[in-house]
Amino acid sequence: MTSVIDAGLVADQNAKLDAQLQADYEGLGGMLTRRGLDIDKLTALAQTFAVAVPSWGAGTGGTRFARFPGRGEPRNVFEKLEDCAVIHQLTRATPSVSPHFPWDKPTDASELRETAKALGLAFDAVNSNTFQDQQGQEQSYKFGSLTSTSAAVRAQAVAHNIECIEIGRAIGSQALTVWVGDGANFPGQHNLRGALERYLDSMREIYAALPSDWNVFIEHKLFEPAFYATTIADWGTSFACATELGPKAKCLVDLGHHAPNTNIEMIVARLAQFGKLGGFHFNDSKYGDDDLDSGSINPFQLFLVFNELADAARREGEAFKPAYMLDQSHNVTDPIESLMSSAAEVQRAFVQSALVDRAVLTGLQEQNDVLEAAQTLKRAFRTDVSPILAMARVRAGGAADPVACYRASGYRDRVAGLRPAKAGASGSGIV
Amino acid sequence: MTSVIDAGLVADQNAKLDAQLQADYEGLGGMLTRRGLDIDKLTALAQTFAVAVPSWGAGTGGTRFARFPGRGEPRNVFEKLEDCAVIHQLTRATPSVSPHFPWDKPTDASELRETAKALGLAFDAVNSNTFQDQQGQEQSYKFGSLTSTSAAVRAQAVAHNIECIEIGRAIGSQALTVWVGDGANFPGQHNLRGALERYLDSMREIYAALPSDWNVFIEHKLFEPAFYATTIADWGTSFACATELGPKAKCLVDLGHHAPNTNIEMIVARLAQFGKLGGFHFNDSKYGDDDLDSGSINPFQLFLVFNELADAARREGEAFKPAYMLDQSHNVTDPIESLMSSAAEVQRAFVQSALVDRAVLTGLQEQNDVLEAAQTLKRAFRTDVSPILAMARVRAGGAADPVACYRASGYRDRVAGLRPAKAGASGSGIV
Amino acid sequence: MTSVIDAGLVADQNAKLDAQLQADYEGLGGMLTRRGLDIDKLTALAQTFAVAVPSWGAGTGGTRFARFPGRGEPRNVFEKLEDCAVIHQLTRATPSVSPHFPWDKPTDASELRETAKALGLAFDAVNSNTFQDQQGQEQSYKFGSLTSTSAAVRAQAVAHNIECIEIGRAIGSQALTVWVGDGANFPGQHNLRGALERYLDSMREIYAALPSDWNVFIEHKLFEPAFYATTIADWGTSFACATELGPKAKCLVDLGHHAPNTNIEMIVARLAQFGKLGGFHFNDSKYGDDDLDSGSINPFQLFLVFNELADAARREGEAFKPAYMLDQSHNVTDPIESLMSSAAEVQRAFVQSALVDRAVLTGLQEQNDVLEAAQTLKRAFRTDVSPILAMARVRAGGAADPVACYRASGYRDRVAGLRPAKAGASGSGIV
Amino acid sequence: MTSVIDAGLVADQNAKLDAQLQADYEGLGGMLTRRGLDIDKLTALAQTFAVAVPSWGAGTGGTRFARFPGRGEPRNVFEKLEDCAVIHQLTRATPSVSPHFPWDKPTDASELRETAKALGLAFDAVNSNTFQDQQGQEQSYKFGSLTSTSAAVRAQAVAHNIECIEIGRAIGSQALTVWVGDGANFPGQHNLRGALERYLDSMREIYAALPSDWNVFIEHKLFEPAFYATTIADWGTSFACATELGPKAKCLVDLGHHAPNTNIEMIVARLAQFGKLGGFHFNDSKYGDDDLDSGSINPFQLFLVFNELADAARREGEAFKPAYMLDQSHNVTDPIESLMSSAAEVQRAFVQSALVDRAVLTGLQEQNDVLEAAQTLKRAFRTDVSPILAMARVRAGGAADPVACYRASGYRDRVAGLRPAKAGASGSGIV
Repeated sequence: MTSVIDAGLVADQNAKLDAQLQADYEGLGGMLTRRGLDIDKLTALAQTFAVAVPSWGAGTGGTRFARFPGRGEPRNVFEKLEDCAVIHQLTRATPSVSPHFPWDKPTDASELRETAKALGLAFDAVNSNTFQDQQGQEQSYKFGSLTSTSAAVRAQAVAHNIECIEIGRAIGSQALTVWVGDGANFPGQHNLRGALERYLDSMREIYAALPSDWNVFIEHKLFEPAFYATTIADWGTSFACATELGPKAKCLVDLGHHAPNTNIEMIVARLAQFGKLGGFHFNDSKYGDDDLDSGSINPFQLFLVFNELADAARREGEAFKPAYMLDQSHNVTDPIESLMSSAAEVQRAFVQSALVDRAVLTGLQEQNDVLEAAQTLKRAFRTDVSPILAMARVRAGGAADPVACYRASGYRDRVAGLRPAKAGASGSGIV
Repeated sequence: MTSVIDAGLVADQNAKLDAQLQADYEGLGGMLTRRGLDIDKLTALAQTFAVAVPSWGAGTGGTRFARFPGRGEPRNVFEKLEDCAVIHQLTRATPSVSPHFPWDKPTDASELRETAKALGLAFDAVNSNTFQDQQGQEQSYKFGSLTSTSAAVRAQAVAHNIECIEIGRAIGSQALTVWVGDGANFPGQHNLRGALERYLDSMREIYAALPSDWNVFIEHKLFEPAFYATTIADWGTSFACATELGPKAKCLVDLGHHAPNTNIEMIVARLAQFGKLGGFHFNDSKYGDDDLDSGSINPFQLFLVFNELADAARREGEAFKPAYMLDQSHNVTDPIESLMSSAAEVQRAFVQSALVDRAVLTGLQEQNDVLEAAQTLKRAFRTDVSPILAMARVRAGGAADPVACYRASGYRDRVAGLRPAKAGASGSGIV
Repeated sequence: MTSVIDAGLVADQNAKLDAQLQADYEGLGGMLTRRGLDIDKLTALAQTFAVAVPSWGAGTGGTRFARFPGRGEPRNVFEKLEDCAVIHQLTRATPSVSPHFPWDKPTDASELRETAKALGLAFDAVNSNTFQDQQGQEQSYKFGSLTSTSAAVRAQAVAHNIECIEIGRAIGSQALTVWVGDGANFPGQHNLRGALERYLDSMREIYAALPSDWNVFIEHKLFEPAFYATTIADWGTSFACATELGPKAKCLVDLGHHAPNTNIEMIVARLAQFGKLGGFHFNDSKYGDDDLDSGSINPFQLFLVFNELADAARREGEAFKPAYMLDQSHNVTDPIESLMSSAAEVQRAFVQSALVDRAVLTGLQEQNDVLEAAQTLKRAFRTDVSPILAMARVRAGGAADPVACYRASGYRDRVAGLRPAKAGASGSGIV
Repeated sequence: MTSVIDAGLVADQNAKLDAQLQADYEGLGGMLTRRGLDIDKLTALAQTFAVAVPSWGAGTGGTRFARFPGRGEPRNVFEKLEDCAVIHQLTRATPSVSPHFPWDKPTDASELRETAKALGLAFDAVNSNTFQDQQGQEQSYKFGSLTSTSAAVRAQAVAHNIECIEIGRAIGSQALTVWVGDGANFPGQHNLRGALERYLDSMREIYAALPSDWNVFIEHKLFEPAFYATTIADWGTSFACATELGPKAKCLVDLGHHAPNTNIEMIVARLAQFGKLGGFHFNDSKYGDDDLDSGSINPFQLFLVFNELADAARREGEAFKPAYMLDQSHNVTDPIESLMSSAAEVQRAFVQSALVDRAVLTGLQEQNDVLEAAQTLKRAFRTDVSPILAMARVRAGGAADPVACYRASGYRDRVAGLRPAKAGASGSGIV
């Protein structure tokens, strides 16, 4: 495996932090021991955690008002992979990349797969794109794709998804994520039921093209780009469609795609109960699909999601393996830094959820000892497991402090020289 | 049929308005003719409309902060029926009453049924109550009812629902509405999945007790009285449960029970598409489950709901018969006045939705003529069908202006004398 | 004044509709007479209504996901003016245009002013832009503009605003609208108070540059492009800043810039009461700053806003003149059609608000006759004043049916030929 | 000072936990030392923290649907004081009680004051009640109190507030909190501006009655009990009114009284900047005014509020002293347990906010090092300061683990015997 960041630098950086980490680890270990927990087991558990990074997350994001590019943004899928390799090298928590087509469409799929492999990476779920028109594309998605009233548009969108499956097979993926922004901006624009019927017809064709060991993930979203009625707007619709389609179809939960005040952890519990929890797009939000860094706005909510996942894992056993992916837009930070710290935030919630003694919790719930049941979760959430996360990284060959190590490496400066900015990239002109 | 309001008074009141109503009706009829519509057919259609009134709606509602009683509030189910009879006599749109047990539990069910019949009323869906503790009740619902961790509590709640079915049979009802406020106020209080499993177990027992021609309606609600996680919080959960239970189980949509910004008409479309739309609790809201008068806050939304119902009726034909009920809390108005004008608002939306030429709309949707499709709905909604509603009432023996007629009748003054207020009824003391 | 659309065509189109319009007008007039209202006075009132159109609204809008261009989009300020002239010619309700700099920056301001004048147009409030980086710009607004921690950035942003005032003076404007998207995406990114202090410092410099007969409008917005904390997020902040700055500073209310469930008409009442209501950006929304066509989602809310404006006008008299502007994003409709029908929707609410007898309403409010007070507003809102709007247009030389007339004119086809689409304009690449 | 809980029991309980607390304290102290912080200084700081408890919080709360009483609920103000004394004895963080009139109206104010003093308690802000009708009250608040259209109703409400001030003086309070639920349930019910004008007139009379060293706190709330338009609905209105009234009038922030998605910490920053931050009602919420335990739903938000308070304290110095009060409804927990753990949660946020090196943070903000600025706050929030809180309690004579100690004391069992439940207390009958 190629190390993008010099392994010696990582070792040097870790050495500087070693004494502090050991002391913090011992201090935390003592506290956990007094609570009947074994820190090393938790560290080993932390090392099992993996979350995919989205290829597009390596670039700077923006809004409809503007995009302010960063330095050294990757210009193609190979440069994106290089950035992703940095993230995994330092965090040891992001061994796979979720590509997006046609943005990342390779001329030679096996070359792409080999490049990833050489960087220590594999490919996670592939993402199709029928929310934009590509140059030279025959049909426009202006009025919808899989739900379009035009059979030709739907056929084009279906064919694109099937092509995504084919590329995905070639690069070792096993799942297709279908997000469509299709919907209406005005009451009356769509026949709401007709649109979903056409969606299901289109999806049945895509479903039929899935290899036997693949899944298709249906991603719902309340609004944006459609502003009155989004065809796949909520988990209820996603669930009903996944049920219609069959066992390979599952629901994907993006943490920013819900109505205000929605209890997301309960949706997780519901989908797990009914066998349709496919996976996650992790991020955080305060208003809408803000695509902020995971855990940056409401870290307790992220913990509560993992609390449900821990409950489901206890019930379902090995079979329970939802796909984890980050899906964030990095508008004002270095994407590599945001993805590294976000991976750690999700991993943190995973480890914290393991601190809960579920037998004790169940007992408190059965006795309606509400206050103590609530405190049981709060105590786990309050535990600062940072030393466990750092030790898990170090033991796996990563960096004790990934952001500091990355900054010390000068990687961004180096690629800024190699990857000149595209002219006129700023200002979308869309208001 | 006994007329609670003197029929002569109604006739006199109508006579005073006759000239104006005839002129308005002709004026509107002319406009509709120029648009290719026949006003008399619409009036005949309006006369087919019916919405149930809730027995509890006849009393003054309140909040957890206070309740400010009105004059002459009904003290028992017979007085409630009398008030409901006034509403139907004047509106001719509310031929049935939805009772709530144990509040309306009769000592003699056949007497209750006959009394209603004599007043021209029948009974709609019966409502169970497991969100309060009744005096002398063995088990408390403080920590849940159908979802309780206690088998004894669940058994009591199931038995109560089955008793509701029995009373319902005796009074001629054909549906049971189950709303449970069960849920948690704290993360950790419940095992979210366990609570729903217990709910389903309880509901299976209730379902088994349903007569062959009955339905059970599952009513979801986002929050209140539970403030962190409500077990039946959204239509997705309601739909999944109704699917689990079987064909007699359907979903009930209360317009105030959704997260902010939710597109309710789309939920209506989804439930209709998947065969699970049981009925409605009509009201309006701006913030939460405000239980305001139907159409008082967002009348266009009410129209859009009926636009979906018209679409479903066109597709499903005779088989499509969701149950309509008002469910409002009248805190600052005379409940009879609010229920009469609310019934008219729902009827208004029903008639307006019939103004839409669905073939034309479909054509515009297929051509993506978004602006004209939207305007097609707006034009129907903008049409002031008040003269149609008034004429429909007059032709059926009701009042041209129900509120004015009611005020002229002096009914409230009369019952205020007969129904003295309970002492100390104001001020819930709950903050 | 140059007619962009052939005046003969307009006359022909109107002639076709004349009989129907006369009949509808008479029918409505009869109904209004029976309610004590004079339709011709209302038509004359309707003719006094004016709302500005935004220059950028003439182009197709988009989202961060994609923009799907329309045909014949204007490529510069002169083509935008031509489109705006069509809108005003047919609606007679949009005599002014609100320009946006630097997008519309003229090389010769007096030429621009004369061109507008020749088209029958004037310039309304000018809009500055410090939410995007322009090519060749020295300082970047990536981390803020008027609130930036960098004095150089703030100076550049202040200078741009002052330049906007200067151009505005040259083209006959009398107001500057300042909207800044400045804010933070992460807790900790900003010192929340420091950012507002810097904003006020910058605004004081801009305020000082205002001519004596100018106003500056502060536009608040809850979120987007900032997703954690927007510096000018709510009307409270806008009001406090306008108070700090002085009498020329007023608040602008955009209908889509509020938290969910906000009662916008009450904000209008508050700002009017405290003397700080500067004007409006009209549009509609269901979720966020959706920038949908005015009145397309919640027309009753638009009416209630005008109900407050009517109340304020009655209290304040002539002095009360808030600025009205449309601010919409036309993603799936022809922008000219949307702007014409939206202008009519706003005008509709204005006319409907004039149907309310405010003395009667006040009496009902004082007696706490809640139901009748509410019905008084509903009756005004339910009145379909379309014939008044059409007659007002026809009497002023516009089109009875602006959209039909525009379609008949073939204007879009004509400009599509003259204004070739820019290559590669679709797909923002921002996700 | 009388100890309600046996001091020997507290000592015994603390002794059992002593070894673990010492070890945890040392472990945390070591970690903090490695980060340049002195744990004992933080413990001393924690000991300076105080938050008032509301007298009504000692009883079980409920919703409009039901109230499920707990055992041993206090039946009068003296029993409430006894419960509050327990809370302060064990937490050493709640030295004052906020009473509510007429609920807590004493026959002998000095007796009340002395009783409190003997229990180690003082009185914080007094609360008036014009949202309920009391038995024998002449005027009803059904249609408003301070905003009523009736002069007699307003006079009664003003007089009640002035009486609250008088009682408050007698028991040693220095502030009056005015919350009015006044508002409208229907568009048209109120003249929105007229209602606020009357509010201001009423408040001017109350303001005039304030002693020179008193403050009046204006508490805003988005909705409930009014469901369309609440007169004091948002911080903008509260701020404008406080400004109109004068320097003794300030704004009170209740964490559950805002629109969905509102950034509450920014409101705190704004009010601090403009000199109008009076104080807080701490609680937590997910949907509306849920009145859940502080920090139970979104603990990071509570931290961010204290982060702003720490910033304000740094800027304002000694002068900055907002009033802190808990305001929660304990529906499913023992109120004493909830108030003890909630006081600790607020104190936790206070201590965590002191972990932030503000000079470092300012530097990161000025350099736009967004990621590190955000991480600086997150690191402080992640630090589990539980040992500091426990040690602060023990050093001040309180309990290491207040809930465990309280349970061990058998206090609830004891008072359950002494305070029989009122018959028929369950079930509000309001739906």
